[in-house]
Amino acid sequence: MADPRFFHKEGPFTLGDLASRIEATVHTGSDKTVSIQDVAPLDTAGVGEISFLDNPKYVDAFAATAATACIVGRKFIEKAPDGVALLVSDQPYRSYALAAQCFYPGSCRPSDTYGDAATMSAGAHVHVSAKIADGATIEPGAVVSAGCEIGSGAVISSNAVVAKGTTVGRDSYIGPGASVSHAHVGDRVIIHAGVRIGQDGFGFAMGLPTHEKIPQLGRVIIQDDVEIGANSTIDRGAGPDTIIGAGTKIDNLVQIGHNVVIGQGCIIVAQSGLAGSGELGDYVALGARVGMLGHIKLGDGVQIASRSSVIHDVPAGARWGGTPARPVREWQRELIALQKMAKEYGKRKSSGDGN
Amino acid sequence: MADPRFFHKEGPFTLGDLASRIEATVHTGSDKTVSIQDVAPLDTAGVGEISFLDNPKYVDAFAATAATACIVGRKFIEKAPDGVALLVSDQPYRSYALAAQCFYPGSCRPSDTYGDAATMSAGAHVHVSAKIADGATIEPGAVVSAGCEIGSGAVISSNAVVAKGTTVGRDSYIGPGASVSHAHVGDRVIIHAGVRIGQDGFGFAMGLPTHEKIPQLGRVIIQDDVEIGANSTIDRGAGPDTIIGAGTKIDNLVQIGHNVVIGQGCIIVAQSGLAGSGELGDYVALGARVGMLGHIKLGDGVQIASRSSVIHDVPAGARWGGTPARPVREWQRELIALQKMAKEYGKRKSSGDGN
Amino acid sequence: MADPRFFHKEGPFTLGDLASRIEATVHTGSDKTVSIQDVAPLDTAGVGEISFLDNPKYVDAFAATAATACIVGRKFIEKAPDGVALLVSDQPYRSYALAAQCFYPGSCRPSDTYGDAATMSAGAHVHVSAKIADGATIEPGAVVSAGCEIGSGAVISSNAVVAKGTTVGRDSYIGPGASVSHAHVGDRVIIHAGVRIGQDGFGFAMGLPTHEKIPQLGRVIIQDDVEIGANSTIDRGAGPDTIIGAGTKIDNLVQIGHNVVIGQGCIIVAQSGLAGSGELGDYVALGARVGMLGHIKLGDGVQIASRSSVIHDVPAGARWGGTPARPVREWQRELIALQKMAKEYGKRKSSGDGN
Repeated sequence: MADPRFFHKEGPFTLGDLASRIEATVHTGSDKTVSIQDVAPLDTAGVGEISFLDNPKYVDAFAATAATACIVGRKFIEKAPDGVALLVSDQPYRSYALAAQCFYPGSCRPSDTYGDAATMSAGAHVHVSAKIADGATIEPGAVVSAGCEIGSGAVISSNAVVAKGTTVGRDSYIGPGASVSHAHVGDRVIIHAGVRIGQDGFGFAMGLPTHEKIPQLGRVIIQDDVEIGANSTIDRGAGPDTIIGAGTKIDNLVQIGHNVVIGQGCIIVAQSGLAGSGELGDYVALGARVGMLGHIKLGDGVQIASRSSVIHDVPAGARWGGTPARPVREWQRELIALQKMAKEYGKRKSSGDGN
Repeated sequence: MADPRFFHKEGPFTLGDLASRIEATVHTGSDKTVSIQDVAPLDTAGVGEISFLDNPKYVDAFAATAATACIVGRKFIEKAPDGVALLVSDQPYRSYALAAQCFYPGSCRPSDTYGDAATMSAGAHVHVSAKIADGATIEPGAVVSAGCEIGSGAVISSNAVVAKGTTVGRDSYIGPGASVSHAHVGDRVIIHAGVRIGQDGFGFAMGLPTHEKIPQLGRVIIQDDVEIGANSTIDRGAGPDTIIGAGTKIDNLVQIGHNVVIGQGCIIVAQSGLAGSGELGDYVALGARVGMLGHIKLGDGVQIASRSSVIHDVPAGARWGGTPARPVREWQRELIALQKMAKEYGKRKSSGDGN
Repeated sequence: MADPRFFHKEGPFTLGDLASRIEATVHTGSDKTVSIQDVAPLDTAGVGEISFLDNPKYVDAFAATAATACIVGRKFIEKAPDGVALLVSDQPYRSYALAAQCFYPGSCRPSDTYGDAATMSAGAHVHVSAKIADGATIEPGAVVSAGCEIGSGAVISSNAVVAKGTTVGRDSYIGPGASVSHAHVGDRVIIHAGVRIGQDGFGFAMGLPTHEKIPQLGRVIIQDDVEIGANSTIDRGAGPDTIIGAGTKIDNLVQIGHNVVIGQGCIIVAQSGLAGSGELGDYVALGARVGMLGHIKLGDGVQIASRSSVIHDVPAGARWGGTPARPVREWQRELIALQKMAKEYGKRKSSGDGN
């Protein structure tokens, strides 16, 4: 069970009630009135707890679980141990996520950092021209500048800074110490601690004796349901805007350069970097530490392996990897060939060919 | 046109006035009294707007532009469409940068984040022993500590922290949530949001049972006209100082270790990292995600390709790349040879040599 | 000598007094009453200063030093110049670190940022339910939230945020602008400026049309004597905790994913990244920019070369490097073979084999 010092638990829910909230159905013969109080992994779950099975690797753990209930796909129903109530789902992991959200709603979109939700702290700095909707939380040390608009249910955490003119939508969260400028932030956006949005892109007319700064005259548009990880940085556009599409999730310490346009539902894992004017289609996934050259385009559904360097356009649906990135199969074949060649070379040299 | 919510536009300027401000001359036959109100790219510029041509790739866009005026190099004058007024410059992109700066001076060095420029906020924390020059802006939540000196025209943004003893020169900008300690910051320096300057370098006498901390007794010296990107980190020296030379521009999420000495006019692109005691000459350029080993030296004018790892000294003027970095030509030749060899090996194996 | 603007120097100490504090002994014939006022490198040290010799590379500098005293290993005693007092140590660099700590104790664990140590600033935001031990320093703009407990001697720096329920041990330091949530922080921990601890791990049930957030229900446990570099990020666990073992030292801009468990005395150099559920034994060392895949385990004492990508478990005591990482000897042999092969291929092609 999650530490009650940090997490407030809702519930209990009956199995039937949970089913209706998590895109699942109660299996024939399972008791829909049984009370469920918490979520837990298969191996530690006990009485009153619900777990899930998605990966076939864990079928044995499923067969031995002491959970009161379990979320499973149709094909694993027959593996269920006696006495375990079942919720059947087409996407068990997704249903489990929804169940955990039911029990711990506050862990999905923090209501506050300081402990006084839904209040405007006397210790906040709110400009007289800013518009704050009812029900917003403005925490101690938070700064809301001239002309800002903050939506209802939004949280501006302790020591976060919302710079002049910036708008923040409903139920969005700006984490501790984060700063947002020259930006429009949509609804239900989560911006974690220390994120930097809207500062100048890196644009100079380079030369001697000085590099002349190109004024960065665009904005950052963060669409609905985006999440941005701690200490990531997103520069504003140079003229056009930098755009993060709806539902895109960005991990920690990621760099997004000016004019980058990211589609819907993309996933960008930690420490990746996108140079200026790059473009991502919808549902693109970049593994950890991927670097992407400027002015290139990745089509819808592209997947890039961790630690790759992308320097060419990638067609929709393709899976690429390596430095420079190329189709995964080609990349893997080349890696294996080079390893074998290096070994054979070593043997040749050591058997009579000298050093 | 830039969003007036975020950008204050100056002007209009006559063509003649602009010419004198941007190192350009009015072309014979162009009307120096024509009024210019904004900058814009060739393809979107219209009446009252000025654009530029630098890259020959855009000659067609130049020939078709609807801009009222355009900045060009001498060699492209004859390609100009009828009715477009011309400013002739030896460095058209540089002149364009200067023109954009004329129209949007505030976008080059922010006057404030909160909306009350040139004031000392009642919500700032200013130590009684700190010296603040007239005309400095100290924003809400900003902390200016004991013994600090802040120059005239400087901006200490919302929730920025200037630690005890630190000095900040004239017209410098410390962005929201940034922190600076053990440092002397020159004039016209731009330190973006979340930058960390002056914390301990990573120095330990490693061993069992504990790693003993080596006191870090140096400072960070940031010379004039330096720009440092969001969430970058610059550690103070271990005994000698860490030094960032005048006019050097550093992008986001860059790490600079203790004792690093960087010359004038260098460019360091995002997510690069320089280990302790490295040295860069003047006008060195590091592409994105470059890593540099400690205690090595790059001569004046060195250029390192993105994502390279530099582990040896590099002579002045050289262009290196790869991991480990070596002269670009050598590196490229090797990459191509290995690719070809891997392909030939694959064909050999599949045509009778077994797998 | 360190700049007195930033560093407060203690002392002088007699040679004998120093010896007893730094795990060294006064060499026969050296005067234990001589007064030592500062530390300095061999080449710049002068009267009243103590230096050290550890690396044989500097024996000549040792022989020529003008230092009043020097810390050396037994084997170099005879190389000492006339008139230099000697402290003999089994670990001269470690002893030197301890000596520097004697002269500059404040540079090892900052007492404050603002200039008013050991006070609770009127400009801090301290929740009425927080418990602050006597002798803690809470600086201007710092936020200490509901239910927090702050140990004696701890420093919560300017504009740092300690989120609700978090505990901070004795003599620990939370740097300017850093934020800590869902965490228990031990004693004598140093968390530098801008560090982000305790935010959500990057966990989603990915799918269409939306990626569903997995509630992150664990905590971050930071054991005693840990140090964490500027702008690094440590996510809280998904269910289990993220744990940083006692005495581990982490450099700047490092990413630690959810559920990672790090042993004692590890060293993690700048810009490295550990994906979720990774495990490090005790005294593991990761060079700069190392990436580590999720769900893998590195045994005690493992060393990984800079810029490597670790994608498999590594046995205790092993030294690995490369992408993907493998035993260092194997990796180096392969690199050299490939370089030679590429050269030979180039020669073959240019001598009659066509291009």
